[in-house]
Amino acid sequence: MIPAHNENDKAPAVLRWRSAVPLQSARHFLQIPGPTNVPDRVLRAIDRPTIDHRGPEFAALARECFEGLQSVFKTTGPVVIYPASGTGAWEAALVNTLSPGDTVLMFETGHFATLWRRIAGKLGLEVDFVPGDWRHGVDPAAVEEKLAADPAHRLKAVMVVHNETSTGIASRIAEIRQAMNRARHPALLMVDTISSLASLDYRQDEWGVDVTVAGSQKGLMLPPGLSFNAMSEKALAAARTARLTKSYWSWEDMLAANRSGFFPYTPATNLLFGLREALRMLMEEGLDNVFKRHARFGEATRRAVRAWGLELLCLEPKEYSNSLTAVLLPDGHSEVELRRVILENFNMSLGSGLGKVQGKVFRIGHLGDFNDLMLCGSLCGVEIGLALAGVPHRQGGVAAAMAYLAAENASRQQTTKRRSAS
Amino acid sequence: MIPAHNENDKAPAVLRWRSAVPLQSARHFLQIPGPTNVPDRVLRAIDRPTIDHRGPEFAALARECFEGLQSVFKTTGPVVIYPASGTGAWEAALVNTLSPGDTVLMFETGHFATLWRRIAGKLGLEVDFVPGDWRHGVDPAAVEEKLAADPAHRLKAVMVVHNETSTGIASRIAEIRQAMNRARHPALLMVDTISSLASLDYRQDEWGVDVTVAGSQKGLMLPPGLSFNAMSEKALAAARTARLTKSYWSWEDMLAANRSGFFPYTPATNLLFGLREALRMLMEEGLDNVFKRHARFGEATRRAVRAWGLELLCLEPKEYSNSLTAVLLPDGHSEVELRRVILENFNMSLGSGLGKVQGKVFRIGHLGDFNDLMLCGSLCGVEIGLALAGVPHRQGGVAAAMAYLAAENASRQQTTKRRSAS
Amino acid sequence: MIPAHNENDKAPAVLRWRSAVPLQSARHFLQIPGPTNVPDRVLRAIDRPTIDHRGPEFAALARECFEGLQSVFKTTGPVVIYPASGTGAWEAALVNTLSPGDTVLMFETGHFATLWRRIAGKLGLEVDFVPGDWRHGVDPAAVEEKLAADPAHRLKAVMVVHNETSTGIASRIAEIRQAMNRARHPALLMVDTISSLASLDYRQDEWGVDVTVAGSQKGLMLPPGLSFNAMSEKALAAARTARLTKSYWSWEDMLAANRSGFFPYTPATNLLFGLREALRMLMEEGLDNVFKRHARFGEATRRAVRAWGLELLCLEPKEYSNSLTAVLLPDGHSEVELRRVILENFNMSLGSGLGKVQGKVFRIGHLGDFNDLMLCGSLCGVEIGLALAGVPHRQGGVAAAMAYLAAENASRQQTTKRRSAS
Amino acid sequence: MIPAHNENDKAPAVLRWRSAVPLQSARHFLQIPGPTNVPDRVLRAIDRPTIDHRGPEFAALARECFEGLQSVFKTTGPVVIYPASGTGAWEAALVNTLSPGDTVLMFETGHFATLWRRIAGKLGLEVDFVPGDWRHGVDPAAVEEKLAADPAHRLKAVMVVHNETSTGIASRIAEIRQAMNRARHPALLMVDTISSLASLDYRQDEWGVDVTVAGSQKGLMLPPGLSFNAMSEKALAAARTARLTKSYWSWEDMLAANRSGFFPYTPATNLLFGLREALRMLMEEGLDNVFKRHARFGEATRRAVRAWGLELLCLEPKEYSNSLTAVLLPDGHSEVELRRVILENFNMSLGSGLGKVQGKVFRIGHLGDFNDLMLCGSLCGVEIGLALAGVPHRQGGVAAAMAYLAAENASRQQTTKRRSAS
Repeated sequence: MIPAHNENDKAPAVLRWRSAVPLQSARHFLQIPGPTNVPDRVLRAIDRPTIDHRGPEFAALARECFEGLQSVFKTTGPVVIYPASGTGAWEAALVNTLSPGDTVLMFETGHFATLWRRIAGKLGLEVDFVPGDWRHGVDPAAVEEKLAADPAHRLKAVMVVHNETSTGIASRIAEIRQAMNRARHPALLMVDTISSLASLDYRQDEWGVDVTVAGSQKGLMLPPGLSFNAMSEKALAAARTARLTKSYWSWEDMLAANRSGFFPYTPATNLLFGLREALRMLMEEGLDNVFKRHARFGEATRRAVRAWGLELLCLEPKEYSNSLTAVLLPDGHSEVELRRVILENFNMSLGSGLGKVQGKVFRIGHLGDFNDLMLCGSLCGVEIGLALAGVPHRQGGVAAAMAYLAAENASRQQTTKRRSAS
Repeated sequence: MIPAHNENDKAPAVLRWRSAVPLQSARHFLQIPGPTNVPDRVLRAIDRPTIDHRGPEFAALARECFEGLQSVFKTTGPVVIYPASGTGAWEAALVNTLSPGDTVLMFETGHFATLWRRIAGKLGLEVDFVPGDWRHGVDPAAVEEKLAADPAHRLKAVMVVHNETSTGIASRIAEIRQAMNRARHPALLMVDTISSLASLDYRQDEWGVDVTVAGSQKGLMLPPGLSFNAMSEKALAAARTARLTKSYWSWEDMLAANRSGFFPYTPATNLLFGLREALRMLMEEGLDNVFKRHARFGEATRRAVRAWGLELLCLEPKEYSNSLTAVLLPDGHSEVELRRVILENFNMSLGSGLGKVQGKVFRIGHLGDFNDLMLCGSLCGVEIGLALAGVPHRQGGVAAAMAYLAAENASRQQTTKRRSAS
Repeated sequence: MIPAHNENDKAPAVLRWRSAVPLQSARHFLQIPGPTNVPDRVLRAIDRPTIDHRGPEFAALARECFEGLQSVFKTTGPVVIYPASGTGAWEAALVNTLSPGDTVLMFETGHFATLWRRIAGKLGLEVDFVPGDWRHGVDPAAVEEKLAADPAHRLKAVMVVHNETSTGIASRIAEIRQAMNRARHPALLMVDTISSLASLDYRQDEWGVDVTVAGSQKGLMLPPGLSFNAMSEKALAAARTARLTKSYWSWEDMLAANRSGFFPYTPATNLLFGLREALRMLMEEGLDNVFKRHARFGEATRRAVRAWGLELLCLEPKEYSNSLTAVLLPDGHSEVELRRVILENFNMSLGSGLGKVQGKVFRIGHLGDFNDLMLCGSLCGVEIGLALAGVPHRQGGVAAAMAYLAAENASRQQTTKRRSAS
Repeated sequence: MIPAHNENDKAPAVLRWRSAVPLQSARHFLQIPGPTNVPDRVLRAIDRPTIDHRGPEFAALARECFEGLQSVFKTTGPVVIYPASGTGAWEAALVNTLSPGDTVLMFETGHFATLWRRIAGKLGLEVDFVPGDWRHGVDPAAVEEKLAADPAHRLKAVMVVHNETSTGIASRIAEIRQAMNRARHPALLMVDTISSLASLDYRQDEWGVDVTVAGSQKGLMLPPGLSFNAMSEKALAAARTARLTKSYWSWEDMLAANRSGFFPYTPATNLLFGLREALRMLMEEGLDNVFKRHARFGEATRRAVRAWGLELLCLEPKEYSNSLTAVLLPDGHSEVELRRVILENFNMSLGSGLGKVQGKVFRIGHLGDFNDLMLCGSLCGVEIGLALAGVPHRQGGVAAAMAYLAAENASRQQTTKRRSAS
């Protein structure tokens, strides 16, 4: 049944702003944790005439995309590209590898883990959903314990969100894999990297991930509209017997067509133009440099938050996310009002509190096509915004971030000089 | 199991060309029947920074898109927009309205009807697939007969491809609806308008269509990556009890979020920028003018084909498509070779023969952002290409098209003058 | 003779950086005082197919540009558009109104006044060049004195740079006009507004300016390549007898063709597409709001400079420029090195010291398509850069700017609320 | 004095159309002989943020442009780039090399030769203007005769328009140079290549040209707004003593700054982005291939004109232009009306009759980013337009062009095959 109520928990608060938004001058600061700022090079690549998706020029485009994606996922296995949102890639991971009634293990790390769980339920899977406090990542010990308690191998897959976009908390995938190995359990490991891929270090093959889910609109610096599955041999083997119904999401048709550089249905050609350009940009910068850059943004932001006297949602330093930072507001202060003030005064969008932390948490996205001065401008906007919105805080967050960035850049200069000298 | 064979029937032939394609100068003539030539205005609209899909600016964008689409589908009911190819919208139409084991009535009008049927099968539906010769549209009398022979109402839906992109044949939806009414059968009427919407006249409400399936990359003049369902009250009622599994394609979540101008998952924002611009362009020209323009292209092309002494695939004049024309080659001549010669020499892509007519039929797309001189250039390319490829034909196709266009334009001038004078 | 030495005083220092510039990520901060950041809307307007410059669509484009420019110059007289840099518009102002051997009065307010003087010399004019210290604007009293001392009316024109881009000092045009009136001297008043138009208040007619010179790449938010003359009736009268040779720059041919919306030679059509869009953006924001926005940027920047303990080049508060700020470095510290450090570390370009202040002064551009957070980011880059380059300074510049912006925005909010309430 | 009369001879006739122009769908056919169709690659290159014209990235851009231009002009000497129309480059050629009262030899080959002559007059030069019938290029024998009759070397320069854009007639520069050599006359040879460069073969050094004048908006495939001078050593030597006043156009300042990759005043940076891309495209295709392509367009068009029974303006086959074709209409028929009908009905702009041939001649531009099917479409538009406008003609022009293109392409295929085989 189509109910009358609105399940979308973000819209109403946002809509109240509408008439109040004044004319905004100059560049918008899109500091939600995705979609991220799309580089001009990528936008301009998208802005070219569509080509025949069955012609030779297309095959060359597709092949470059597939190969570039393998480098980014750090896998030698296939990567499939869906003309779809990341939500579709979540669904694809499940329907290709599982059968009706299968049980999967999931962890309540935040809003997006909860949404993925909901999808599993709709598709007829049983979910063993380990509760969480939204302030920690997945505990590798808990994974081991759960699997050790399942000698019958009822659990077919362990599903983890690498970087919880709603909380700014990154789970430790390599350690989770080790925990699974210790338990000698055959469950598949499926990982959502939607807000981590190409921002945080990720290694599909080395870490033994079976299915990785990703999207275009975060670290890959594209507009939304493409999503991805990367799969291990073991996942491909599982696909041969999986019985959930599937058509659009079927890896089988996709992989067969991809082999010659084509798709089983019309691909989103112009977004692929953008993907090719974004992959080239990542390769030019070098993935390690990309990760270091994001680490710098993460640390600078956390220092600013601490200097403001505000609380990070993430309680475990090993799990800090470098692609976004979620900040708790003091009781009695609403993130909705803070974000409204900042959007209206400073033309900057920040991430809202989602699900359980709605109203309490705002999120600063610092991923994708981003640099130190964009970060500084964003943090200035937050610091002035806290004052304008009457949120109790200490000044000096921006100063703390600047001090850190100064030290970081000074140290990089030293390194560069030493290298040039030697 | 993931089999080794390749179901994609187009790739291999195409790939053989690859190394032979020389540098092509100037504008490509993209005369496949979709994706079509994307107007610069639309490309430039897509080429702008992505915005927060939960912010007030987004809601205004989405609302304009929904309203514009209703005008194009000629419906007062809701239209949903998927970040997906048209293939996804086919699947959406089925999973939202039907239950496992339901039987649907389909007609083998060509390759795309066959593909839609295959999806229905994968989703667990029974398909009563009425065979066809690929040279006619759906016979309204056959629909009536089938439904009349189903007093138990085992058939839950009649599924028709409005304009068969593989054959250039348009089925008569209004007459099919009348046939269903005469049979007093409650089956839903689902129509694929992927290559007809915004090119050929279409009237969701007046014709009593329950679910319309459409895509972005044809008459809507967008790159591929968006697809659509428009649904009647009856379809929405069916959705309340339909039991096929669904998550991504679920109308329920989509409609709930759409009510406030948002989406249940990240929408393809930049393609929506393009959609808004394309809808504005269609409104500026006026849908009736758009249809007349396509009718002119269709007639001019058919006159050229006849003058060449070649055979139209479509045998029934009432079913000529005005968005593309499929042409049979004489025995012993391959469309693959003809299209290769034309692509290499004239930088024009034509549609290949698909499925049963592979090798025998080529297709000229003349839909979307297209005008008389683009058509003339395209027909010149075909006429010279026939000569270069050694396909037996008479010259004079272009001359016949030009004579028709001259007469048409002269008559329009007269009309305009009379209007100005009165 | 073409000498071997290089008169361009900026290049060598800049070029030494070249090999050291690392890959820069994300958006460049173009904080030179022009060319300024071009809005995406303007870039996208430029990015469209060129049209026939003799066709009806062109005439409509040109007319909208002419009318919009009149609003920006605040004049009812004609404005001509040259496909040329601002330097060309300087030349045009002279060759159209003066004759060989004429004497003009100019003031050494900085580098650009000196360059304009040099052009006058090359064209065969005598220049009475009043020396200056590059730290003050034109003194209206000095103008009056000079004119009073010229009863024979040997001085044919008074030429003033409204906003000296090399010093960040704005001369008071209205007061200069009053001084001229008091002296009852018939000299023409010619004003260079290259870095003030559409950033600082300017009123051609009300202030009695005879020829205004302007360019596209500053407050008008366009790429460089267009420049402008706006002229009074008195200037047009002078043009009838002026005998300096001219062809390209001739107002006569230009105005004759412009009357019907055309040009005497091929115009820079695509830049005109951009001009139309930029003019629309200025009208949407409202010129008064544009000026207020720039005033906020100027004041915030000056507060930052003072907090750093650095010295503003401008000594007279009434002459502070709101489009850029020139800052003196302590003795023994080079602006070239400071700017190099900032460009390499933070992907931000600042203005160099020009002419007499080369090496000693750097300039922060804060004009055009710019907002509070872009300014904050820019000031952060300067503050960290001062530390990295070892320039003695106090921290707290950014904090001072933020405090000011917070107060300004709070006060705007109050005003808006009061207005809504009443 | 600014007179009331309008020297611009094109505007009024054009403007009468205005209200009658209906909404035009799809791509405009810009078949005036320049500005030409700008490739998407070039437009997208222009559509990027402006950079600091004094920074290291700019110097790299400028250097690539200078080197690419040298390849296109086929010179090892310097090429200067003006932010200006081609008209400015005409002026630049004169003011840099000549002195007041100098006499130059010019030939009345058409409208643009006449305009250049007018500029020379305005600048204070004496022009020996050899009358012409607008149907022939410059006669090398006449050049020799004129120079032989000038033993005192009163003639300082011979000025020739390589390709008369108003008549579609190309003068033979190499033969003119030989004639000058035979006369042993020291006059400079100055050549306007505005509508020939990068379309017709041109060799500055080999042909001994002293100053070449060019513009961006024709064969270079850019929007208007840039123009060029390429100069020989002899021209540079002349510049050392030339006394015409100059500032903006001065080679001296330009060359001095260019040496380090910079400009003496703000360059049109974004057009330079486009120039770099256009030069890359020309190199990718290869200049010889570019010339062959234009030769094919020229011949095909002339065959169409002859088949229509219309008369080419050019009477000398050796002087046919391959970048445009000027066609005479039968007495009593107006090109203005013909072009109006074609623009209104087919969204195609053709070149008007200019100067002496106004009303009698229309011009088909077939240069720049252009291919066979764009040409076919254009010729179809002309052929149908002739019918709609009631101009007496025979059908079959398009057929004649198609026959020629078929033969040409067949022959190219043969060549390619033979090469692959050997």
